Amino acid sequence: MMTYQAPYQDMQRLVAQAYKQQGLDTLAPFDDFDLELANAVMEEAAKFASGVLAPLNQVGDVQGCRFEEGNAQKDDDQKTKVITPAGWKSAYQQFAASGWIGLALPEAFGGQGLPKYIAQPVNEMWQSANLAFVMFQALAQGGSEILLKFASESLQARYLPNIVSGEWTVAMALTEPSAGSDLGALTTKAIPQDDGTYQIKGQKIFITYGDHDLTENIAHLVLARTPDAPAGSRGISLFIVPKYRVNPDGSMGKFNDVRCTGIEHKMGLHGSPTCSISYGEQDACIGELIGERNQGLMAMFVLMNEARLSCGLQGVALGELGYQSALEYAKERTQGSNGKGERVAIIEHPDVKRMLLDMRSETFALRSLGYQIAAQIDRADTTNDNALQARIALLTPIFKAFSTERANVMAGQVVQVFGGMGFIEETGVAQIMRDARITTIYEGTTGIQARDLLMRKVRGDQGLALKALLCEIDDQAAKVEANSALSKTAEEIRLVVVTIRSLLDKALLGQEEDSLLGVSVPFLDAMGTLCCAWQLMNAVVLAGDDIDDGYYQNLIAMVQFYGAFRLPTAKAALQTVESKSLGLQEYVF
Amino acid sequence: MMTYQAPYQDMQRLVAQAYKQQGLDTLAPFDDFDLELANAVMEEAAKFASGVLAPLNQVGDVQGCRFEEGNAQKDDDQKTKVITPAGWKSAYQQFAASGWIGLALPEAFGGQGLPKYIAQPVNEMWQSANLAFVMFQALAQGGSEILLKFASESLQARYLPNIVSGEWTVAMALTEPSAGSDLGALTTKAIPQDDGTYQIKGQKIFITYGDHDLTENIAHLVLARTPDAPAGSRGISLFIVPKYRVNPDGSMGKFNDVRCTGIEHKMGLHGSPTCSISYGEQDACIGELIGERNQGLMAMFVLMNEARLSCGLQGVALGELGYQSALEYAKERTQGSNGKGERVAIIEHPDVKRMLLDMRSETFALRSLGYQIAAQIDRADTTNDNALQARIALLTPIFKAFSTERANVMAGQVVQVFGGMGFIEETGVAQIMRDARITTIYEGTTGIQARDLLMRKVRGDQGLALKALLCEIDDQAAKVEANSALSKTAEEIRLVVVTIRSLLDKALLGQEEDSLLGVSVPFLDAMGTLCCAWQLMNAVVLAGDDIDDGYYQNLIAMVQFYGAFRLPTAKAALQTVESKSLGLQEYVF
Repeated sequence: MMTYQAPYQDMQRLVAQAYKQQGLDTLAPFDDFDLELANAVMEEAAKFASGVLAPLNQVGDVQGCRFEEGNAQKDDDQKTKVITPAGWKSAYQQFAASGWIGLALPEAFGGQGLPKYIAQPVNEMWQSANLAFVMFQALAQGGSEILLKFASESLQARYLPNIVSGEWTVAMALTEPSAGSDLGALTTKAIPQDDGTYQIKGQKIFITYGDHDLTENIAHLVLARTPDAPAGSRGISLFIVPKYRVNPDGSMGKFNDVRCTGIEHKMGLHGSPTCSISYGEQDACIGELIGERNQGLMAMFVLMNEARLSCGLQGVALGELGYQSALEYAKERTQGSNGKGERVAIIEHPDVKRMLLDMRSETFALRSLGYQIAAQIDRADTTNDNALQARIALLTPIFKAFSTERANVMAGQVVQVFGGMGFIEETGVAQIMRDARITTIYEGTTGIQARDLLMRKVRGDQGLALKALLCEIDDQAAKVEANSALSKTAEEIRLVVVTIRSLLDKALLGQEEDSLLGVSVPFLDAMGTLCCAWQLMNAVVLAGDDIDDGYYQNLIAMVQFYGAFRLPTAKAALQTVESKSLGLQEYVF
Repeated sequence: MMTYQAPYQDMQRLVAQAYKQQGLDTLAPFDDFDLELANAVMEEAAKFASGVLAPLNQVGDVQGCRFEEGNAQKDDDQKTKVITPAGWKSAYQQFAASGWIGLALPEAFGGQGLPKYIAQPVNEMWQSANLAFVMFQALAQGGSEILLKFASESLQARYLPNIVSGEWTVAMALTEPSAGSDLGALTTKAIPQDDGTYQIKGQKIFITYGDHDLTENIAHLVLARTPDAPAGSRGISLFIVPKYRVNPDGSMGKFNDVRCTGIEHKMGLHGSPTCSISYGEQDACIGELIGERNQGLMAMFVLMNEARLSCGLQGVALGELGYQSALEYAKERTQGSNGKGERVAIIEHPDVKRMLLDMRSETFALRSLGYQIAAQIDRADTTNDNALQARIALLTPIFKAFSTERANVMAGQVVQVFGGMGFIEETGVAQIMRDARITTIYEGTTGIQARDLLMRKVRGDQGLALKALLCEIDDQAAKVEANSALSKTAEEIRLVVVTIRSLLDKALLGQEEDSLLGVSVPFLDAMGTLCCAWQLMNAVVLAGDDIDDGYYQNLIAMVQFYGAFRLPTAKAALQTVESKSLGLQEYVF
């Protein structure tokens, strides 16, 4: 059960589509990073994902990580340790040795410098094959990007080569018991020392890979407050705090008083250690400032966009894994009979087929959206295009929240297709559902994404970026409206666009904040559904006639299905948006 | 965490409402079973649920059941055993001693003979407090009803007193590895013996409480085939097969070769043992026929209706448990700030409030629907009303499937309200989500309920029962349309009714079966949503002015909220129904 094969045909097509549509083929920086290279890299990654990572996925779930309390008399780093599941360490070494960690990091620090449009499908493969395992990857990527953007050259020189090579991992230490979504409430202290470093003291929770046995050292990026810092989110600074101190030449020094005090017993992602960390229990924890004092949250925003894109992609990855499992089972499992009384595989039952096509079309559409955003980021990195930046900023919260919400629905459908067998842990698909559950929470809950979308991305620019997006979607739909196979869906798309436009002036831009926030998630849902329909339509339009009939006919069927089964929910959500939270503010709990 | 208090005010109101609305106060058989008695019983049950069962809920989840392989050399009943979680046995003894098992079973066999309208809220409390524990209850109830209806007097006399008292439990042995939803495929054999009994031989799986250490004996109701039986579902007979043989005087005899070969490691309901059972491994398993040969499935249909009602109620129960947990947490947990920059409890955030009110209104509405169906069954038992029978038959699959589907959504929302803490197992709410996952599968999957609804309940009588229901809903909405607080929702309800009516002739009654089955679940969704809106409206109408303002105002807010946030999804689903599965049949997997 739970085998995974990268969905090659889709991936290659959608990568090529995004590459061309974002015009990367016309930009000089991408001369060395063309589609041929992309396909070669994906091919290698696919082998590694299926061959090395996927077989460890259920192992990680069943074994989980272990936290061992060591000899409490000995006040050193050996006091406690976190043991990863069997096979984890060897897989990590292979992963690092193959250069996958530095895939999209600068060549100057040992990376391969590949653009995001290539890294995106590769990351999707890792996440499908073994999400719990590969979480260190997004941390290394995001952490490195912060260092590249904000850290001094000396810090970069001492840390980046070790991170890029996988010699050390990165941990992000943000959350505290009373500071989750609201980081402004955090209390970890950073006391300036005479030598320019800081003494760090505080407790953090929910630190992914905060401690483990995969590497000797771990570079923690820690949010903390200096003594004179203003209250709230304007007084937060960012520090790099290694588990073992780092000498001027980049070699490892003595233990830095960074202690894991326990790991969480989670519903899913058992193989990924979620640690509580105590910094400076013995007042011997030294950190170095990254960037300016009190500018810590700004640095985090860089990470957050990266992390949201990666997290949205987890939705695609888990949707794909679940879809593959469900499809295989539905083709094999015989149960019930057709109209002629013949016993049939359950895929012949229209309702099972409906669930499979729902997963199939949504995963395909979300993958397309994710690949487009990655290519847009690549383009934005080399051009100076404010409209493009605004587009990326608009799509990111939609992609993050909608993709992960849908992944949860899809994971439920996978279990449903398996019936009673899906409820049995050994079958493996329950794990997908348990793993998926955190994705709508971490890196900003769905509610927070929806707030960001409405308040900052829509109201922040008076709806400019949204209007531009709606124009593009509408134009595309208008073009295919004459095609009889697509006309019904195109019509639905245009109706949704019209409704959003009218809501923009009527409700979204003017309305009182509280009643608007009550319908922010329905609004995000509508936008997500619309974007998926757009991406499906896009795939049909771009495919033209250059592909074999079966694939093309299936694309058309997906567009039709999405128009019939999913787009109506966008209209329903917009009707809710129009209601101005009727009843919600009146109810007294 | 995960404390549970019966939602008394709601329960008593909705029970009273169903009692009066179904006219039970005018029927002689209910003279001794009035609302005063109902309230007294509920009060006792509430204490038992909160005091005895709820504290064991997480214990059951954490410990689960254990399967111990005994001495394989000794071919007797001691070979294997199933150990329930700590505290289970004592709770069972208290449960049985307090007479809860026979609550709605005949006094002639030691029960209390209470009507279903009283048993329903009591069962809801058990299921909220500890669903995994209390699953034996529905089995005892359903099994007894089968015996009462189909078994000989001698069988009744030997089994029923022991079942009703809780001395023995009941297990239903239907499923086999290749016969799940499709029971016609089962292969367990029943060979007639000279003395009129049958020798039973076969393997069954997924047998809830198929073995355990709570009681000495277990009465298995086993579906099997006699040698001359026709193929498929027309050749299935029902047998009673005790773990220990039952002597003519009802006392326990020797081991009956009924062996548990293992228990499942499930995603949820860990405290409920799900057993694989081997009957007649040593050719020493004797069963007695219940009812006529080859009529086994008919007997099962009696059970299935009972079981579907009970399963639908599980949706309400888990929704309520989750809602209580989420509400408590949302009131306590401080995170983020309001418009004025003050730190607030998360319940102040409109999106969190939206999730809570979604759970609150849906649970309330589904509870109301479930209580109405129970009171309808009571009424139908004492009157000869075909239209009422048809109404019950129409509502049962809607209630079963929609309630459990919504429970899954709500359980996800509970975790979402808890944020990162919800993903930690110790918090307890992850259990609700894991437990809920099976409810849309067992007792007939959602797809099977939707098929039953459309093919048998709607097409089976040319839409007669559906039309009657729509009339009743429309009449009620028409009456309140003038009330400005309710007019918007009433209008929406009437729109949905109009749409279903037009679909009836256009699509539902005539359409080709396969394309209709593809939209059967959306149709059921629309019906479920409409029924919930109807029940909320009903509560407002019946409440009149006789209750304190706060409660009444909240009822109105719930009706408004449901109209704004949930009813639009019914319209969306009906648009999908109208699409005739566009794209679904064209796609080739």
